[in-house]
Amino acid sequence: MIQRSFASASNKIKIVEVGPRDGLQNEKQVIPSEVKIELINKLSNVGLTAIEATSFVSPKWVPQMADARQVLTSITQKPNISYPVLAPNLKGLEAAIDAGAKEVAIFCAASETFNKKNTNCTLEESMERVKAIMDLAREKNVQIRGYISCVVGCPYEGPVSPKLVADISKRLLDMGCYEISLGDTIGVGTPGAIAKMLDEVLKVAPADKFAVHTHDTYGQALANILCSLDYGIRTFDSSIAGLGGCPYAPGAKGNVATEDVVYMLHGSGYDTGIDLKELIHIGDWISQKLGRPTGSRAGSALMLAARRQQQEKAKL
Amino acid sequence: MIQRSFASASNKIKIVEVGPRDGLQNEKQVIPSEVKIELINKLSNVGLTAIEATSFVSPKWVPQMADARQVLTSITQKPNISYPVLAPNLKGLEAAIDAGAKEVAIFCAASETFNKKNTNCTLEESMERVKAIMDLAREKNVQIRGYISCVVGCPYEGPVSPKLVADISKRLLDMGCYEISLGDTIGVGTPGAIAKMLDEVLKVAPADKFAVHTHDTYGQALANILCSLDYGIRTFDSSIAGLGGCPYAPGAKGNVATEDVVYMLHGSGYDTGIDLKELIHIGDWISQKLGRPTGSRAGSALMLAARRQQQEKAKL
Repeated sequence: MIQRSFASASNKIKIVEVGPRDGLQNEKQVIPSEVKIELINKLSNVGLTAIEATSFVSPKWVPQMADARQVLTSITQKPNISYPVLAPNLKGLEAAIDAGAKEVAIFCAASETFNKKNTNCTLEESMERVKAIMDLAREKNVQIRGYISCVVGCPYEGPVSPKLVADISKRLLDMGCYEISLGDTIGVGTPGAIAKMLDEVLKVAPADKFAVHTHDTYGQALANILCSLDYGIRTFDSSIAGLGGCPYAPGAKGNVATEDVVYMLHGSGYDTGIDLKELIHIGDWISQKLGRPTGSRAGSALMLAARRQQQEKAKL
Repeated sequence: MIQRSFASASNKIKIVEVGPRDGLQNEKQVIPSEVKIELINKLSNVGLTAIEATSFVSPKWVPQMADARQVLTSITQKPNISYPVLAPNLKGLEAAIDAGAKEVAIFCAASETFNKKNTNCTLEESMERVKAIMDLAREKNVQIRGYISCVVGCPYEGPVSPKLVADISKRLLDMGCYEISLGDTIGVGTPGAIAKMLDEVLKVAPADKFAVHTHDTYGQALANILCSLDYGIRTFDSSIAGLGGCPYAPGAKGNVATEDVVYMLHGSGYDTGIDLKELIHIGDWISQKLGRPTGSRAGSALMLAARRQQQEKAKL
């Protein structure tokens, strides 16, 4: 019998909106800074309390994020919202702090091969890099969130050991990360796989130290979130309109859509503090800006209903 | 405290494949009978035990199903597979029996307005119609499955009373239906709504008397199935490639894709008896025949992986 920790098992849910960073970063077309800024400003008005704003990575590797400083310094930051940014290394952290970042996310993968291909270092080297970042962050009073990628499956190595994920989680928490976001980066996870992973991970720390980050590549994201709720997880990463790879292309790797998550949570008695009506209009707006259909099924259905209602009203 | 009935709570799952009927019936283009027959014959080889074959409705109302007799008499029926057909009335039942049907599905909606619009009769009249069908079916030794539509929401009336669904279920079971398929016809249900509905429904009969039939309009289908599993439900209706309204159009009303359901169930320790690899190839085949992308995310991702693997092999 596994001992689960339900330390945070209330009905309050925190959504970390990752569309402007994890979402847009994976869109092929380069998006004007003004659109990114407007997106974040719009998202700041719907009740979200965390919006991942941008990434301080080398523009050589990720041209989409070359305007990180401009975006972070141009958005209208609201007092009760955190605007974390991603930083892969010390240089990135310094640039982020210089641009005023108060929260930074760092990342590593629960797979040697993925680490090698994604960050060109081993898992151990990745951990040392994180430690250097943590030392500077502590000195500068910057909060650090840790991402672990490939928590149930890796595109190169296949299934991932839950024990490895638990071990990395513990090390990141010990180093000072205030929260670990467990990412099913390629979306292969099922509720069964998520459960096995959480069985191990929750042995090292209570549920309120973790977020779950799902992708809808295999359509499993909401089911995986529902399963995580049973484990006491109350923080979920999601992306407006499912930004992050077009869900209409075969094998697309879209993040789960925030609208779909909020629709499920509200219908199931959870409180996100988010205004879903406002949210679907932002999803519709950004999809139009990108010239692609929304990746949110709930967003799509609710917008259709809203438009029909408007047409009926216009007739009267 | 609700008393739940887990009479059938094993890890064996029965999938009722509804693509050839509920799926194709809602496709706009008329599909040649040969394609329908080939689809059913292909589906008969992957481990499915129930394939809804066609519908004996008036061709005036549903031209797509005008070839019901031809389809049912031309498919190669395998011994351990049931091939239920839909019949809305006595005339339909007679035609179905005449064509050799051994199992027939009847339907009504848990909403007065939906009944009126869909079948042009009140719920009470609908029940009388069912009774007449049941009497003939018993005489002819034909099994009857009951569909209840709109079990959590109606497009005209909004949320539906769980008690009404339980009441209709009881009446249909008392009349002799061997199983009730609870349909979230418009896909508005969330796990919370499904739970409330099942809380009432399982007061009138154990879980093995029920199937759950989900649509993915709001992206909630798999989460709703996961919730139903917790209630002991072990029979689910789904549609190959998500046939039944193009999922790429706004507000589409596609059935949940069989591939997505099977992927989730297999990954979570359930046994469907279905060969997922074979299944995704059929989903790919029918999508190509219809000239539209598949509505299955798992199908799409797995086909992409299969094609990549083939290309790699070809290089060697």
